[in-house]
Amino acid sequence: MLRLWIFLGFIFTVLCVYPVWAKPATSERQRSWIKPQFKEKFFTQLLDHFNYNSWGNGTYSERYLITDEYWRKGYGPVFFYTGNEGDVWDFALNSGFIVELAAKQEALLIFAEHRYYGKSLPFGEESFNIENVGLLTVEQALADYAVMITQLKEELGAQKSPVIVFGGSYGGMLSAYMRIRYPNIVAGALAASAPILSTAGLGDSGQFFRDVTADFENYKTACKDAVKAAFQELQLLAQRKDYTRIQSAFLLCKTPSSDKDVHQLNGFLRNAFTLMAMLDYPYQTSFMSKMPAFPVKVACEVMLNGSDVLSALRDTVGIVYNATGTQTCFDLYSLYVECADPTGCGLGFNSYAWDYQACTEIEMCFESNNVTDMFPPMPFTPSMREEYCAKRWAVLPRPGWLKTQYWGDALSTASNIIFSNGDLDPWANGGVRKSLSESLIAINIADGAHHLDLRGSTENDPAAVTKARQQENLVIAQWVKAAREKML
Amino acid sequence: MLRLWIFLGFIFTVLCVYPVWAKPATSERQRSWIKPQFKEKFFTQLLDHFNYNSWGNGTYSERYLITDEYWRKGYGPVFFYTGNEGDVWDFALNSGFIVELAAKQEALLIFAEHRYYGKSLPFGEESFNIENVGLLTVEQALADYAVMITQLKEELGAQKSPVIVFGGSYGGMLSAYMRIRYPNIVAGALAASAPILSTAGLGDSGQFFRDVTADFENYKTACKDAVKAAFQELQLLAQRKDYTRIQSAFLLCKTPSSDKDVHQLNGFLRNAFTLMAMLDYPYQTSFMSKMPAFPVKVACEVMLNGSDVLSALRDTVGIVYNATGTQTCFDLYSLYVECADPTGCGLGFNSYAWDYQACTEIEMCFESNNVTDMFPPMPFTPSMREEYCAKRWAVLPRPGWLKTQYWGDALSTASNIIFSNGDLDPWANGGVRKSLSESLIAINIADGAHHLDLRGSTENDPAAVTKARQQENLVIAQWVKAAREKML
Repeated sequence: MLRLWIFLGFIFTVLCVYPVWAKPATSERQRSWIKPQFKEKFFTQLLDHFNYNSWGNGTYSERYLITDEYWRKGYGPVFFYTGNEGDVWDFALNSGFIVELAAKQEALLIFAEHRYYGKSLPFGEESFNIENVGLLTVEQALADYAVMITQLKEELGAQKSPVIVFGGSYGGMLSAYMRIRYPNIVAGALAASAPILSTAGLGDSGQFFRDVTADFENYKTACKDAVKAAFQELQLLAQRKDYTRIQSAFLLCKTPSSDKDVHQLNGFLRNAFTLMAMLDYPYQTSFMSKMPAFPVKVACEVMLNGSDVLSALRDTVGIVYNATGTQTCFDLYSLYVECADPTGCGLGFNSYAWDYQACTEIEMCFESNNVTDMFPPMPFTPSMREEYCAKRWAVLPRPGWLKTQYWGDALSTASNIIFSNGDLDPWANGGVRKSLSESLIAINIADGAHHLDLRGSTENDPAAVTKARQQENLVIAQWVKAAREKML
Repeated sequence: MLRLWIFLGFIFTVLCVYPVWAKPATSERQRSWIKPQFKEKFFTQLLDHFNYNSWGNGTYSERYLITDEYWRKGYGPVFFYTGNEGDVWDFALNSGFIVELAAKQEALLIFAEHRYYGKSLPFGEESFNIENVGLLTVEQALADYAVMITQLKEELGAQKSPVIVFGGSYGGMLSAYMRIRYPNIVAGALAASAPILSTAGLGDSGQFFRDVTADFENYKTACKDAVKAAFQELQLLAQRKDYTRIQSAFLLCKTPSSDKDVHQLNGFLRNAFTLMAMLDYPYQTSFMSKMPAFPVKVACEVMLNGSDVLSALRDTVGIVYNATGTQTCFDLYSLYVECADPTGCGLGFNSYAWDYQACTEIEMCFESNNVTDMFPPMPFTPSMREEYCAKRWAVLPRPGWLKTQYWGDALSTASNIIFSNGDLDPWANGGVRKSLSESLIAINIADGAHHLDLRGSTENDPAAVTKARQQENLVIAQWVKAAREKML
């Protein structure tokens, strides 16, 4: 669920962002987040950095958020968030740690929006037409950031300010790539929960859902068993084509009528567990539809206290899909959209973009099998990906491309990257879990979910994340100091 | 005269290559070059690695030459020449040192042709139409090489063979960039005579022609003075619009009739000195129109023994333009074509490509001024470049882009690159002249012209180049060994 942000962002942006900020919930108020006064700006970028013909020389407006309220001008570093697949405000308002760090280290703070997301649409509403979407590539996005950093530093008198990049999830991949690709511009990167290996086709296809499963199993083995049993029962009903029973058990708005509908139901159900595993934070998260604190625990309690496994499964996924308690039935096709990312592409406009990226560069042939995980067997092979992508986007995926471009696991010449991962996060084992050198530092956070370390500190934080943030602070301060000395 | 190859290649390919190879001149026969049995092949490449739309998914055939006759299969390294601005055969047949080294180190040898040169024309004869030429960029060329290396290694069972890249001049820039950009694929680079700094806009605009001048001055101060005086006399004639005298003095086919013609004459004259300085080799080079051994010395002798300075100047440039002795007059516009590279774009089809590169990424605003050099004042400012490029190619140059993309002088995180430069080469001071670390090694070659070290060894070689080649051999063998050990 690298695409979490899309799903969240959609709901969050429309319903919650500003009201929440203005009237924080209790759990929010307890936090020590510093509220930054971001200014929203736009930067003129080349549409295509790698083609000079007349069309390629066109430009678009890339959004970024900036605040200099913590900056010791001309001296303090630049902290630059390499925006990922979503509205940049979502990242800016949910990365409290970076704000805290900017305050501590007197940094100029910039959050940049990734091309083809949020308001950074190169061709406006026509950005996702086949003929326009092709410029949505990692290399183009990185070049956007390199150009933006270089120019903004000059404009703002920050030439002597070392730049540290930050990012979570795909944004963490981008921040690692920025250090790999542009060490002339970037002194170091905090790549939080960045699955740079699994998305480059390294690792095994069962890892992701096995690790989602492990979260529930680690809470209680019985929980995993119950979920597995429920999916098996659903399979039996599907084999019998007992669609009426399936509809009533899962409170579906429409009676399923085909294998396709059952497949959609399975994806819908599995996706709720993916979300709860990724977002297993120790406090309520308000940017999601009232996701409770410790959702895995809550889910397992629901799962283990149902009258029967099917209704238990329904109520468990209801934590995600019926958080408001107002859904009278589940509309499978509007609540979950299948795409080239089997961990889900979320909903809304931006999800097109992520689907396209999953169809081209980002490899996520993750599968569940009901053996090493608790989910139904849902294969997603390279050829299934090809078939989908050719049909949906008229493209063929390019296997191995990320490994070529961003080195895969051949990272020995890289430096100054922190790879932080939370042990609860199913993305973690797709990333770098062991330090590779003195300056390629793996930080593993016990009791941490998906890039918990980037979130603002709270009283409820597990000790491990507090320690991780302290270490990140120290390492980044060292990088800044060393880069500054090199400039003298 | 990074564009030397075009000029040479044109004449060379048409007139000389195979006959010379078959019947080497005496100076050639003395050489110990090993003659490789290259096979000419083609590789299917994406037209556009950074745009996935249907158009961008097109392909073209990239030419490469390969020989495995020295290769210890599955063990010996891969030596890969990152082809630059010309027909790949020109590089393969004039880089005897790489062949010698392949024989010594049991390497698989590949010379790849740069897109838009030689036979690697993405759109055939229409490649230089404005709408097609935009994909001629450094980043695309490097991606071609990365993909080609990766795939050929697999196809040929060379997965365990460390790759070393080689290149001269712009090809040397590309080999350095390959190590910078793809250290996951490339274990080290020999970047011979690679002006990575001056072409990235670093350094001063007077350096190049000052260093051309220095070559002649170092031979004899009087030589420089004579050339300078001759250009001044030409200027006086031009101011008096004494075009008849100019025509007769320089044996021009047509009488000049404008400032433009005089400007063309100045460029034509200056370019001959540029060529002789760059190619000041200690033996006759047959790939150029019978360029004598030590052309700078020969030029100065002609220059200082003329009956008057203008006819002396004419006869001196005749070493280049009338090497066959068959020219009855000089046709200014056919013998020299002005372009966005003030050191000359040469002639022939490929020169379009180089002009385009000089108009987009490669910055060469080099100027002569008749003060720090012996040439007429010929300014070439960024705005003159802009104006020319907008008119010729409908593009605007992108100043600073190479510095952003390939780090300029911020090379501290790079490793395993040899920057070799010849002290006689006017490009040398646009490159890296001092070692930057233990593995960023500058080798300066006294009495060496433009990438002399890449040429096959001869009895006439100055001691410095023999020593340089020995060092290059040792360093490269170390890189290969270290890379091999890392794989185990």
